[in-house]
Amino acid sequence: MAKNTNIRISLPAVCFVWQIAMIILFGVFIRYDEESDTHWIEHRRKKNISTNLENDFYYRYPSFQDVHVMIFVGFGFLMTFLKRYSFGGVGFNFLIAAFGIQWALLMQGWFHHLDENDWKIKIGVENLINADFCVASCLIAYGACLGKVSPVQLMVLTLFGVTLFAVEEYIILELLHAKDAGGSMVIHTFGAYYGLTISWVLYRPLLSQSRHLQGSVYHSDVFAMIGTLFLWMYWPSFNSAIADHGDGQHRAVINTYLALASSVLTTFAISSISQNNGKLDMVHIQNATLAGGVAMGTASEFMITPYGSLIVGFCSGIVSTFGYLFLTPFMEKTLKIQDTCGIHNLHAMPGVIGGIVGAITAASASESVYGQEGLINTFDFKDAVANRTVNIQGGYQAAGLFVAIAFGLVGGALVGGILKLPIWGDPADANCFDDDVYWEVVVLKGSYDAILKIIILCIWCNRIC
Amino acid sequence: MAKNTNIRISLPAVCFVWQIAMIILFGVFIRYDEESDTHWIEHRRKKNISTNLENDFYYRYPSFQDVHVMIFVGFGFLMTFLKRYSFGGVGFNFLIAAFGIQWALLMQGWFHHLDENDWKIKIGVENLINADFCVASCLIAYGACLGKVSPVQLMVLTLFGVTLFAVEEYIILELLHAKDAGGSMVIHTFGAYYGLTISWVLYRPLLSQSRHLQGSVYHSDVFAMIGTLFLWMYWPSFNSAIADHGDGQHRAVINTYLALASSVLTTFAISSISQNNGKLDMVHIQNATLAGGVAMGTASEFMITPYGSLIVGFCSGIVSTFGYLFLTPFMEKTLKIQDTCGIHNLHAMPGVIGGIVGAITAASASESVYGQEGLINTFDFKDAVANRTVNIQGGYQAAGLFVAIAFGLVGGALVGGILKLPIWGDPADANCFDDDVYWEVVVLKGSYDAILKIIILCIWCNRIC
Amino acid sequence: MAKNTNIRISLPAVCFVWQIAMIILFGVFIRYDEESDTHWIEHRRKKNISTNLENDFYYRYPSFQDVHVMIFVGFGFLMTFLKRYSFGGVGFNFLIAAFGIQWALLMQGWFHHLDENDWKIKIGVENLINADFCVASCLIAYGACLGKVSPVQLMVLTLFGVTLFAVEEYIILELLHAKDAGGSMVIHTFGAYYGLTISWVLYRPLLSQSRHLQGSVYHSDVFAMIGTLFLWMYWPSFNSAIADHGDGQHRAVINTYLALASSVLTTFAISSISQNNGKLDMVHIQNATLAGGVAMGTASEFMITPYGSLIVGFCSGIVSTFGYLFLTPFMEKTLKIQDTCGIHNLHAMPGVIGGIVGAITAASASESVYGQEGLINTFDFKDAVANRTVNIQGGYQAAGLFVAIAFGLVGGALVGGILKLPIWGDPADANCFDDDVYWEVVVLKGSYDAILKIIILCIWCNRIC
Repeated sequence: MAKNTNIRISLPAVCFVWQIAMIILFGVFIRYDEESDTHWIEHRRKKNISTNLENDFYYRYPSFQDVHVMIFVGFGFLMTFLKRYSFGGVGFNFLIAAFGIQWALLMQGWFHHLDENDWKIKIGVENLINADFCVASCLIAYGACLGKVSPVQLMVLTLFGVTLFAVEEYIILELLHAKDAGGSMVIHTFGAYYGLTISWVLYRPLLSQSRHLQGSVYHSDVFAMIGTLFLWMYWPSFNSAIADHGDGQHRAVINTYLALASSVLTTFAISSISQNNGKLDMVHIQNATLAGGVAMGTASEFMITPYGSLIVGFCSGIVSTFGYLFLTPFMEKTLKIQDTCGIHNLHAMPGVIGGIVGAITAASASESVYGQEGLINTFDFKDAVANRTVNIQGGYQAAGLFVAIAFGLVGGALVGGILKLPIWGDPADANCFDDDVYWEVVVLKGSYDAILKIIILCIWCNRIC
Repeated sequence: MAKNTNIRISLPAVCFVWQIAMIILFGVFIRYDEESDTHWIEHRRKKNISTNLENDFYYRYPSFQDVHVMIFVGFGFLMTFLKRYSFGGVGFNFLIAAFGIQWALLMQGWFHHLDENDWKIKIGVENLINADFCVASCLIAYGACLGKVSPVQLMVLTLFGVTLFAVEEYIILELLHAKDAGGSMVIHTFGAYYGLTISWVLYRPLLSQSRHLQGSVYHSDVFAMIGTLFLWMYWPSFNSAIADHGDGQHRAVINTYLALASSVLTTFAISSISQNNGKLDMVHIQNATLAGGVAMGTASEFMITPYGSLIVGFCSGIVSTFGYLFLTPFMEKTLKIQDTCGIHNLHAMPGVIGGIVGAITAASASESVYGQEGLINTFDFKDAVANRTVNIQGGYQAAGLFVAIAFGLVGGALVGGILKLPIWGDPADANCFDDDVYWEVVVLKGSYDAILKIIILCIWCNRIC
Repeated sequence: MAKNTNIRISLPAVCFVWQIAMIILFGVFIRYDEESDTHWIEHRRKKNISTNLENDFYYRYPSFQDVHVMIFVGFGFLMTFLKRYSFGGVGFNFLIAAFGIQWALLMQGWFHHLDENDWKIKIGVENLINADFCVASCLIAYGACLGKVSPVQLMVLTLFGVTLFAVEEYIILELLHAKDAGGSMVIHTFGAYYGLTISWVLYRPLLSQSRHLQGSVYHSDVFAMIGTLFLWMYWPSFNSAIADHGDGQHRAVINTYLALASSVLTTFAISSISQNNGKLDMVHIQNATLAGGVAMGTASEFMITPYGSLIVGFCSGIVSTFGYLFLTPFMEKTLKIQDTCGIHNLHAMPGVIGGIVGAITAASASESVYGQEGLINTFDFKDAVANRTVNIQGGYQAAGLFVAIAFGLVGGALVGGILKLPIWGDPADANCFDDDVYWEVVVLKGSYDAILKIIILCIWCNRIC
């Protein structure tokens, strides 16, 4: 039975209605914060701030722009690797990220930044970073569904994904008071299990009918390397973007830089050892090299030491590459989970590693290493949690990991159920991984002309001979 | 009559002579300013500046680099979308931008930064940003002419474009004292009408002879997305790069970020609704998604409110996409304006919207919203304009918009006339959009070999059969 | 005799063993410095530092990220220009850079930053930048060998390259007290001669057997432009990244920006004048446009004046393009040096120019131009060299250039000898420039199918006719 992939009503309707809703909700709730408002000059005088540079903008803007590049070029181009789904990879990534950041500003604002005096959300550059972070979890989930869903489904996935994220983040960071600067748990673990569960619910038994399009060509692999490298290079900014001013941001950069370098080497090693003649596989290089960044997300601010970062990258590169070699085929055959981009290997497993590393590192923190003030600053042992010990902090970190997994699994099952409704315009099993379904694609007119000329030439040759 | 596209004398001559002229003029006029000179340490002591961080370099350098990427990769790759003009798109963009920034430093210096004591222009990082801005207007104009002009013509277009820009900018920003931080009027409106008028003067009645090359192929569309995304991601830096330190830069980023997000959704909506089955058109996604950034150029520093920014993006995305659907074909047929990249839709209309939004927002500014000091700071109501009211400011903003349009139209007509002279080596109507005219292109040797082999094979098959 | 290119044991072994060695050595030697350690807050109080912004992180992080992009995307994509070696270009660049930065942190740490109290190396963001710089010299050397060596050879090349770099850098910067902020001598001259000598030792007499793959196709040239442009745009950050805070960084950016712009125009001029009809050659545009940045590496911090920077770019663009036209073919035929990327033209010659310009500019520095304090600050005439005159400084600069060349030549000869051993899995002369040797490449299944269909069609036509 042919599916109806006509989205001429549904996609414009969703875009228009939701964007208008955003405008209304922003009108009601969102205002500039004191650092982006024209009253900043008065605020400065009142708080005795000596220079404009103390505006948080100057602490965080370079990192924000790097994170922004990761979201749109990094994730977008990483998903261009399929031979005929590059438009969908980078284009739908663009669409849902642009929607998601707006909705995230609202959802995260309601949970974290609602001013109790006037019930407004006051936003500044840190909110923009957090919105980008929130959307990252939905883009990860998209990775599992790449090529198999309609843009309308992706919008729904993002709407609920952002909503779930905001709740889960509130529980982990505020209620449990766990630390997760780079989001190993909050972003990667949640996003990956959310996407994998959706993909499991949307299982397509006859997907092999689209097998001829489920691969790369030479140039699409090079395009995907643009995504890989921008993610890899800017990951230190990702893990440090909302870290503490000063040594916090500085240390997060060093730790992430080292973990990423280390996971490149183990990825190349495992990729080479797994093939005849030691030939390398582009899928591994494009993805598993990033595992170190994912796994360093929680502990990036901690005193994990430089060699500790190298060890984390070392292990996560190995685990991730083995995942591509053995787990992805196993999951597809046995567990009926079709994971187009292998997000289980790049985000789920390294994310869980990151959560565990964070819990262990927190539990083993000590005043002798951190210094008395350093320990308090790093873990924010103030106010309600002023008396928390590092052991207990480690326990709460572990609890946070479970919350992230649980939200991913339960949320994914619910949203998967919604997406299974036959109203979203998703493609038939035989039409997956094909841009032609949702995009006006020029069907290589030039090539057909060439072929026609050849045929005519052949006929002409034939007559002569 | 075949045109002579030999530029072996003219292009090197223009490059050499103009570059030598730049060296001489820089020798006479350009010096380091007090923040980039080794006397900075003495300047610091004299002005009692406590830290090196107060050097404007640290306020503006991250934004400068982002703008620099927009100029060279953003504009350059956006113009690689044609199937056989990618070299010309990114390569000539590179050439004229590299020349233009030098000439802009001089022209803008003479008008804005000439030290009256020693008749020198003192440059720092803000001048580099302004030079990049100035060149942007010429790159926009190039968009209308893409594929139809020679590199020598482009150098001439840039020489006059930068000159006109500096005068127009002086009138709008200094004489009228209008605000235009992101250049909706000064850069986009001027640049677009300048380019469109040139394209109108250079009308090619037989351009349809090159129609087979006036389109994209799959991979060239993905290349163009690199340009789109780097423009989109870094536009907040563009609109905030020369905004006021502190809240000015901060607010410009937030406003632009939101306007861009909003225009993505309306672009997808209109693109989908306009095609059978709701299929999306890459041309719209590559261009109209950026309209929000253009339209937020003037008001980015103002207290337009976050939801105001969303509304601006909402409208400009719609207007821009409709432009691609209806206006571009109409202009080509009826007005005889051939606009290769559709700059009327991406820069002219959103630029005018931006100018109008700026005028309205300025006219409706109030002390209750901005605060007394905030209002003065934002609109620089000091010195000669200390007593200007916001209503009058709104009027001057509108006047600025007309100046930009007038300079574009008149300047474009004059420069178009010059470019019409038959000495510049431009291609014949049948050879447009073809890199082979100005570049050593490897003509797919491999493919020809393959075809040859096939033919031989065919003949051989033939004999056997 | 067919060569054995099986690297299934050797590559994983090298990656694993060396990465484990890194972990052990980092465990023994590398610690956070006082600005990235949690004790920063105590350090601040002790040193009376008023704000977190004085953490070196905020001075250097934006530049660091730009340099990082140059190393991985810049160098990586610049080497994707070959029609069938894009994976190897960007992929092996990724591998050896990720290894090299770790080894560089150790080597540079031992020579420059070893704390004599506890024999530890304390790292911060400046060390990360220096590690990236160090690796750049090995990536330059890779350019000469592109397509002709195995990844195992590249790892060896990097191991020794980083080692030699650290020693050479120590001699030039510490012992000779030469200045070289952007590394014209230390990075470019050394790296280029190191690579050229290796390529000379590894001369392949029958390389012409791979000639059909030693060229670009249309899209691979566009990919290479990504590398070119990111190098070009971020070169101001490269030359200013470790320059002095304040005016030093500011001036380095201006000088580099101008030199680069100037070399673009002369590159286009020479490229056009050298071909029939003035057609431009992508090889020149991709490479020689960058010569201005290389040549401004040493003098970037000096008061070379803006027009001086333009002159440097002017000359180096010409020299570099002439190199591609005449020197590369000459070197291959006469000197038996096969230089795939033409690093002699892009790095060696402009690097030497940069060293000479640096020596001359230093020797002609004066208190009247620099100011008394400015002169001392710029050349660090303190402590052991407090009484050095600018003339003597000029002499030491020149001496530094010779050290860089000598290290390149001698080191390259030694390492070339090691790489000549028949154990590294390098390809046969007939299999160079081919990704199929080390990568799982999808061999255009689609194309073969198309050809097959055509043949069948031809046969069918034949019967009918």
